Amino acid sequence: MDYSHMHPQEVKRLIRAGEITGQTSGMCNGYAQANLCILPKEYAFDFLLFCMRNPKPCPVLEVGDVGSKSFRFMASEGNVCKDFPKYRIWKNGKLADEVTDITEYWQDDFVYFLIGCSFSFESELLEAGIPVRHIEENKNVPMFNTNIELTPAGVFHGNMVVSMRPIPNHLVVKAVNVTAAMPRVHGAPVQIGNPKVIGILDISKPDYGDSVTVNEGEVPVFWACGVTPQNVVMATKPPVAITHAPGHMLITDVKNVDLKY
Amino acid sequence: MDYSHMHPQEVKRLIRAGEITGQTSGMCNGYAQANLCILPKEYAFDFLLFCMRNPKPCPVLEVGDVGSKSFRFMASEGNVCKDFPKYRIWKNGKLADEVTDITEYWQDDFVYFLIGCSFSFESELLEAGIPVRHIEENKNVPMFNTNIELTPAGVFHGNMVVSMRPIPNHLVVKAVNVTAAMPRVHGAPVQIGNPKVIGILDISKPDYGDSVTVNEGEVPVFWACGVTPQNVVMATKPPVAITHAPGHMLITDVKNVDLKY
Repeated sequence: MDYSHMHPQEVKRLIRAGEITGQTSGMCNGYAQANLCILPKEYAFDFLLFCMRNPKPCPVLEVGDVGSKSFRFMASEGNVCKDFPKYRIWKNGKLADEVTDITEYWQDDFVYFLIGCSFSFESELLEAGIPVRHIEENKNVPMFNTNIELTPAGVFHGNMVVSMRPIPNHLVVKAVNVTAAMPRVHGAPVQIGNPKVIGILDISKPDYGDSVTVNEGEVPVFWACGVTPQNVVMATKPPVAITHAPGHMLITDVKNVDLKY
Repeated sequence: MDYSHMHPQEVKRLIRAGEITGQTSGMCNGYAQANLCILPKEYAFDFLLFCMRNPKPCPVLEVGDVGSKSFRFMASEGNVCKDFPKYRIWKNGKLADEVTDITEYWQDDFVYFLIGCSFSFESELLEAGIPVRHIEENKNVPMFNTNIELTPAGVFHGNMVVSMRPIPNHLVVKAVNVTAAMPRVHGAPVQIGNPKVIGILDISKPDYGDSVTVNEGEVPVFWACGVTPQNVVMATKPPVAITHAPGHMLITDVKNVDLKY
């Protein structure tokens, strides 16, 4: 089944019905995808400030009103409890469960945060003639913990998570330019070609997602990743938090081009 | 005294000493200036979300940690209680006092918000050969309430305030382009040439600041303005809030060019 040319609302109908529970890379070309972090109101100011101080890994696309499950800007209809293919429930910074619907976990004091996702710019990379390996290999993108310390805010602190795409040497500068134009979905890379510098010792062993082939003549290029909040939740240990499962994103109804204001 | 070529820390020393208590337009060319809103922590999440949902009038430059008076990103040293030439104290949405130092009003639960200011782009307009009338006339910029309703967030709601600069017909497009490149200090105009459309009936009678001459062959151009939070404070009526006095800005140590990430 090719989901690349379907409209987001069609794909989300399948997700809500439990017919898609896998990762969303390559779906609905041209539409922005989003990461998720849900926290109690008590933590909302600190977390929003954390995102603002770290816009590369945590570019905020939308924040819900306290207790609200619906979308105002990033989708014409929907439900934050059902529209991601897979969620992770965190208790005191530890992964407690992985589910496809969080309705039973919902609290009236919850605030959701939608954060830009690099899957958004993959159709633009392809359009520019730049290969995207994990799409070619029908896998999730490889993601890695790094040694890049983020600017803390209130109780929140932690290190950046990055995603990696192998890019042919002669296309690296083009890949930088294409993604730099899209700062709300992570923008330009944070590292090119030297994984050790950011604390990644083996690019064949990602901390999240799948390993992909890096061919002769290709350079591993690293972009800030919206899995960062999960790392931050593990470091900060709030009593409860809910995120998406890595790679299992919200497909928004907003086109990437409309995120450039 | 010409402050246009002085360094921000020199000018702020004069402000802290009470030797400058007037408006800051035209000071420290090339450096970003900032608006201020201070609120108790209880209101901080709603207000930060309000700013994020309304980035044209309220582009956030920095938010302090709870209780912090010092700057982390926008100045190498300083004190939010002393570094603006003039402040306004608001009680339940009403102007209660205007002072040059807010140390005695400070509360341990206060959070400050620095918001981009259009004074920042005036040196870029001048550099591009575009006249800035209120600087020529040694006045404060004219500012107006409008009928443009902002997106509410939590308890915060209200209408946009705009600043006006008369621009010669043949330079209007250039003025749009110069300012569009600076979204963190309000960016492109919100209205060109038709004040009535946004609810302004008489451009010779600004709601804040001074009236300036509009010559034959010039068009009034309106930019979103960081006095907007004062309008929002009046509409929302929090028990206490502190803002700068219109036109009496913080001159940051950060150059405009460094705000383009």
